[in-house]
Amino acid sequence: MKYEVFYGKGMGKVKKEYLDIYEVVKNLNEVVYTGKALDYKAQKLIAIGITASRCDETATEKQMRSAMKELKATPEEIVDVLRVVLLLSGMPAFTKGMRILEEITKK
Amino acid sequence: MKYEVFYGKGMGKVKKEYLDIYEVVKNLNEVVYTGKALDYKAQKLIAIGITASRCDETATEKQMRSAMKELKATPEEIVDVLRVVLLLSGMPAFTKGMRILEEITKK
Amino acid sequence: MKYEVFYGKGMGKVKKEYLDIYEVVKNLNEVVYTGKALDYKAQKLIAIGITASRCDETATEKQMRSAMKELKATPEEIVDVLRVVLLLSGMPAFTKGMRILEEITKK
Amino acid sequence: MKYEVFYGKGMGKVKKEYLDIYEVVKNLNEVVYTGKALDYKAQKLIAIGITASRCDETATEKQMRSAMKELKATPEEIVDVLRVVLLLSGMPAFTKGMRILEEITKK
Amino acid sequence: MKYEVFYGKGMGKVKKEYLDIYEVVKNLNEVVYTGKALDYKAQKLIAIGITASRCDETATEKQMRSAMKELKATPEEIVDVLRVVLLLSGMPAFTKGMRILEEITKK
Amino acid sequence: MKYEVFYGKGMGKVKKEYLDIYEVVKNLNEVVYTGKALDYKAQKLIAIGITASRCDETATEKQMRSAMKELKATPEEIVDVLRVVLLLSGMPAFTKGMRILEEITKK
Repeated sequence: MKYEVFYGKGMGKVKKEYLDIYEVVKNLNEVVYTGKALDYKAQKLIAIGITASRCDETATEKQMRSAMKELKATPEEIVDVLRVVLLLSGMPAFTKGMRILEEITKK
Repeated sequence: MKYEVFYGKGMGKVKKEYLDIYEVVKNLNEVVYTGKALDYKAQKLIAIGITASRCDETATEKQMRSAMKELKATPEEIVDVLRVVLLLSGMPAFTKGMRILEEITKK
Repeated sequence: MKYEVFYGKGMGKVKKEYLDIYEVVKNLNEVVYTGKALDYKAQKLIAIGITASRCDETATEKQMRSAMKELKATPEEIVDVLRVVLLLSGMPAFTKGMRILEEITKK
Repeated sequence: MKYEVFYGKGMGKVKKEYLDIYEVVKNLNEVVYTGKALDYKAQKLIAIGITASRCDETATEKQMRSAMKELKATPEEIVDVLRVVLLLSGMPAFTKGMRILEEITKK
Repeated sequence: MKYEVFYGKGMGKVKKEYLDIYEVVKNLNEVVYTGKALDYKAQKLIAIGITASRCDETATEKQMRSAMKELKATPEEIVDVLRVVLLLSGMPAFTKGMRILEEITKK
Repeated sequence: MKYEVFYGKGMGKVKKEYLDIYEVVKNLNEVVYTGKALDYKAQKLIAIGITASRCDETATEKQMRSAMKELKATPEEIVDVLRVVLLLSGMPAFTKGMRILEEITKK
């Protein structure tokens, strides 16, 4: 299920105590990742590009893991995403993304 | 040429007066958009996702135009990028992206 | 209706052509602005604080206009939001917010 | 005292070694949180919205703790702030805020 | 006077109607630009780097104009700032900064 | 060597596996830090201002350490950078920068 990736600590509390938010987030997630022209994997790579361009390590790691595990994204594909991050968002965002990728793939 | 998209006003000055910067930016651009696993179009769609997630209208419009003209990206594909922007970056970034897309496709 | 504020150019296209996105955004908007403990006006002032802290003039203006027209927020209340913006996000965000407020209230 | 919240590690050094900065920050803090139309608690909730919308976990946690301890803000009120964050800044900012809130309230 | 640069539209309203904010901002400005080790010009160049790294064109232009007029910063010096912006914040921020510089120096 | 500072975990992987990226990043780094009008140290202080203004602790610490070790930047000089950060980017960015500086200089 596409929205399973959001079942982190924060969303666990939401599911239990704020069902209205949980339901709309689940629907939002379904609508977002039901692209008409791009498949789920292409959209996931875009998600990696967006989170890696910001300084949000947690979200970047979660997106990378999800892309590799659920969608069989390869390290090569993720590096090609990070190339775009290097050009558009600079060195610190790029090296941070490379470091996260390295940590994920090492294990 | 992949780096032609950067020949805006700012880069014109760079080419004329700061050749060292111009050369390295050209090389950077070549390296970035010579992905090993993703094609140029997939990378361009990632670029749209990154710029649309920030409040940079100029860059978003430039990336969208370039993707549509050079790489035949369809409005449907760009909307699928903006779906991810909606989820990861919120409504203002999404509606701004939709408005830019609407202005480009109207003409 | 709380979601009417989003019927800008971008959302017009969404309503006509991407009904799935439109519906979920409408629902999201309803859920978000149906706070259990804070009223709609308190939430709108928070929205002004968030958009003014970013460099997104369009969204800031839209949020301010909506707060003043729909919810009778006063200039004093908005300045009290901008005080927090000054402390947490710095001078450029603050002066930009003050300028937008001045333009709205002048007319 | 409203500015006590800033007496973190960083501000300790400032107080001891850079008294000019310390004094102006104390004054700034007083002026900011002496709103004419909004009370301190309403302003604190705005502060949570701003910091949670950025990827700054330290500041978000500090603002949440301060709001709950000093001003008796309830978890419900903070979730209503995070609803706005979800709409304006996207899922990663929202889930991060929910996780921080969960960690604070668990103990 | 160092704080004169802030007398834009927004600050005009502040001076007239919110004297408490005006006074603290003036003091803040004085304290900030009274560096113990760096002179005013070095600090101004840092300010250009910060605003150019964000997508805030208004603030970048204001900082550049102020640095060139008040402190005789040269275009060469500003380009050296923008070199750092290119490395740390990416191409869009760099080209935007170059375009603003070009527009200022053309006239 | 100016680019040695980038040999972190992330760049190690790049050097070994993505030589094309490594080479262009090395060149970019050389071009950026070969300013015509500003010396390397002035540029490094600008880099601290940019990274401290964002919520990127890793990059801020790396820039500060590099400036102090390679270029003999003093704590006073870095505080003068952080003064500008306080004015342009707000309290959370400033206190975070001060805390990082304190941790570096304590040892």
